[in-house]
Amino acid sequence: MREVAIIGVGMMKWGELWEKSLRDLCVEAALNCLQDAGTDRVDAITIGAMSSGLFTGQEHLASLVADYLGKKNVPAVRVESACASGGLAVRTAFMEVASGMSEYALAIGVEKMTDVSGGEATYALATAADQEWEGFHGITFPGLYAMIARAHMERYGTTREQLAEVAVKNHHNGSLNPHAQFPMKVTREQVMNSVMVADPIRILDCSPITDGAAAVLLTTTDEAKKLKKQPLTVITGIGNATDTISLAQRKDILQLTAIIAATERALEMAGKTINDISFAEVHDCFTIAELAVIEAMGVVKAGQSGPATVDGLTSLEGKFPINPSGGLKSKGHPVGATGVAQICEAVTQLRGEAGKRQIKNAKAALTQNMGGSGGSSVVHIVEVK
Amino acid sequence: MREVAIIGVGMMKWGELWEKSLRDLCVEAALNCLQDAGTDRVDAITIGAMSSGLFTGQEHLASLVADYLGKKNVPAVRVESACASGGLAVRTAFMEVASGMSEYALAIGVEKMTDVSGGEATYALATAADQEWEGFHGITFPGLYAMIARAHMERYGTTREQLAEVAVKNHHNGSLNPHAQFPMKVTREQVMNSVMVADPIRILDCSPITDGAAAVLLTTTDEAKKLKKQPLTVITGIGNATDTISLAQRKDILQLTAIIAATERALEMAGKTINDISFAEVHDCFTIAELAVIEAMGVVKAGQSGPATVDGLTSLEGKFPINPSGGLKSKGHPVGATGVAQICEAVTQLRGEAGKRQIKNAKAALTQNMGGSGGSSVVHIVEVK
Repeated sequence: MREVAIIGVGMMKWGELWEKSLRDLCVEAALNCLQDAGTDRVDAITIGAMSSGLFTGQEHLASLVADYLGKKNVPAVRVESACASGGLAVRTAFMEVASGMSEYALAIGVEKMTDVSGGEATYALATAADQEWEGFHGITFPGLYAMIARAHMERYGTTREQLAEVAVKNHHNGSLNPHAQFPMKVTREQVMNSVMVADPIRILDCSPITDGAAAVLLTTTDEAKKLKKQPLTVITGIGNATDTISLAQRKDILQLTAIIAATERALEMAGKTINDISFAEVHDCFTIAELAVIEAMGVVKAGQSGPATVDGLTSLEGKFPINPSGGLKSKGHPVGATGVAQICEAVTQLRGEAGKRQIKNAKAALTQNMGGSGGSSVVHIVEVK
Repeated sequence: MREVAIIGVGMMKWGELWEKSLRDLCVEAALNCLQDAGTDRVDAITIGAMSSGLFTGQEHLASLVADYLGKKNVPAVRVESACASGGLAVRTAFMEVASGMSEYALAIGVEKMTDVSGGEATYALATAADQEWEGFHGITFPGLYAMIARAHMERYGTTREQLAEVAVKNHHNGSLNPHAQFPMKVTREQVMNSVMVADPIRILDCSPITDGAAAVLLTTTDEAKKLKKQPLTVITGIGNATDTISLAQRKDILQLTAIIAATERALEMAGKTINDISFAEVHDCFTIAELAVIEAMGVVKAGQSGPATVDGLTSLEGKFPINPSGGLKSKGHPVGATGVAQICEAVTQLRGEAGKRQIKNAKAALTQNMGGSGGSSVVHIVEVK
């Protein structure tokens, strides 16, 4: 297998971008990425998008974007695994390069979510749940994650304050990120007094509805060396795993087995343990998600995520920073874009280009992206070579 | 790059399958495939589906199917490129094995199209067109292909009778295929007197709305040899290419550049020319599509496809059989499944297991799958090793 480097990252300001179309978002992030890479060579394109059909009436997106990016004729495909679509677009681009099918592979993640009503967006997102056993009966994701939160509180004594602390931390980080959709700081009290969505989840426990895109350009390490980009960042491990997408069909809704397996596989491929990781970007679609995920990843033991967050373990200055970018919570969550943006943040931090949110001495980053309530997950390990 | 063999193919009877759900279709085809392969080892799953969101309200399909197939936890992803989704699912599975990320990769193609009304299905299919420049203005695929047909008739003198002959041939082949949705023969007169859809395209020029799935299992040639499956079929070439998805943005609507490029790339990778190919399965979503595609592939010169079809070049007994399975026209066209089913037919023919529609002395097959009106195309070359 050929070693694969990340030679370009492209972000953009996320938000309610009514003046930008789905294709505009892709092209903007992709051009930023190519400018960052210092090359416009693209041999293949993968696009992560969860539901461009339901959000905008546009499938066949990869061909469309190849054309509008001036790369008509290159191989292109969209990949989807609900909110893990972006991470899987990067994994697919990785395989393009690793296999030798392509030399330069561009992965774009995107979602254009604000062209539909809130109800339509909620329906579109709920297609990541089991349509026959969950969606049909009317449950949506805040309700599913509320059940996980309630179970976590019951079993481990996790408190409302601890959940709120995740939002406080991530909005603090997001306030230092020029691309964040909601870069304002929030207090614990603001989170705990915000509008109830699905008990115990309140509006400030939720990631927002966002328009946005992100892109990364991959090539072989040998090619990357020619471009003399320093420091060189490489993908040393990838893990992808699945679980039932229906919460009711799991033995234990606090056991996120797809996240456990994806993390183990990625670390094994990289020849690392979780203790070798400098920081992580994780899928905090709700505050409880960050807590459950860092337990599944082995950053802390089961039940310890709440206290550890309050103690500052996962803050920018902590021993294991989580979501230096602001996470989905503050940066925004254009669902198909999230997994790609996580890798953009990993590379930006590893290069030492993260400005006011820079983590010191970061050598190895982990990104964890998931679909639905953990029905799929993909983990990447990115290291400075 | 590791050499990749096809060790199992799984088809099922296609049609209006109201008693089978989206997940049922996937599982049925996949189990048939694993039974054919003689192994149930699956290390990764790729699923080609165009718009499970619009057709059934179900995204996140790959995880769901992994679970229902008894393979929960394996890596899984859906890939999409409109009606070329199936072919691209096979290409992605190929990269899983070729890169060394997985040893056994299962590619499933599926579409469940009859749970919605005809109007909703037409809308869902139209999302393969450019939403801003085509779909928004109300045009759907019969209209787009009618423009291609009209231009072909004007430039080359292609006749209504020649178009009809494609349907006659493919329904003849389909009548010999137990999996075909519409296995009845049709006459030239029946086609030419059938209901008008978009002049000059009539209902019997169109592929149908279909529920169905298909699956193939890939592994390395070295692994395949251990299973002692004879004859061994390997994928020796793959080409994928894109074009504008909007017809109006092309220099010449009779130049299907994505098909030309995808065919050239696949043949080059396989070290072959079109004259080395024994037969092909091509994307006859409309009768005119088969004519335009075999010209783009170089089977005949531009403008010669109509007369050549009438002369029998592309019949089962002809020098270059096209669509021995019955094609999309007779076999049916569950859009995401089509590209995978084409490869099932290629393998079935190469193994000599095609029964009454068996082509003699077939050594190398080509499959051509495309999205929209040629906005994307993927071509595979499958050979007996």
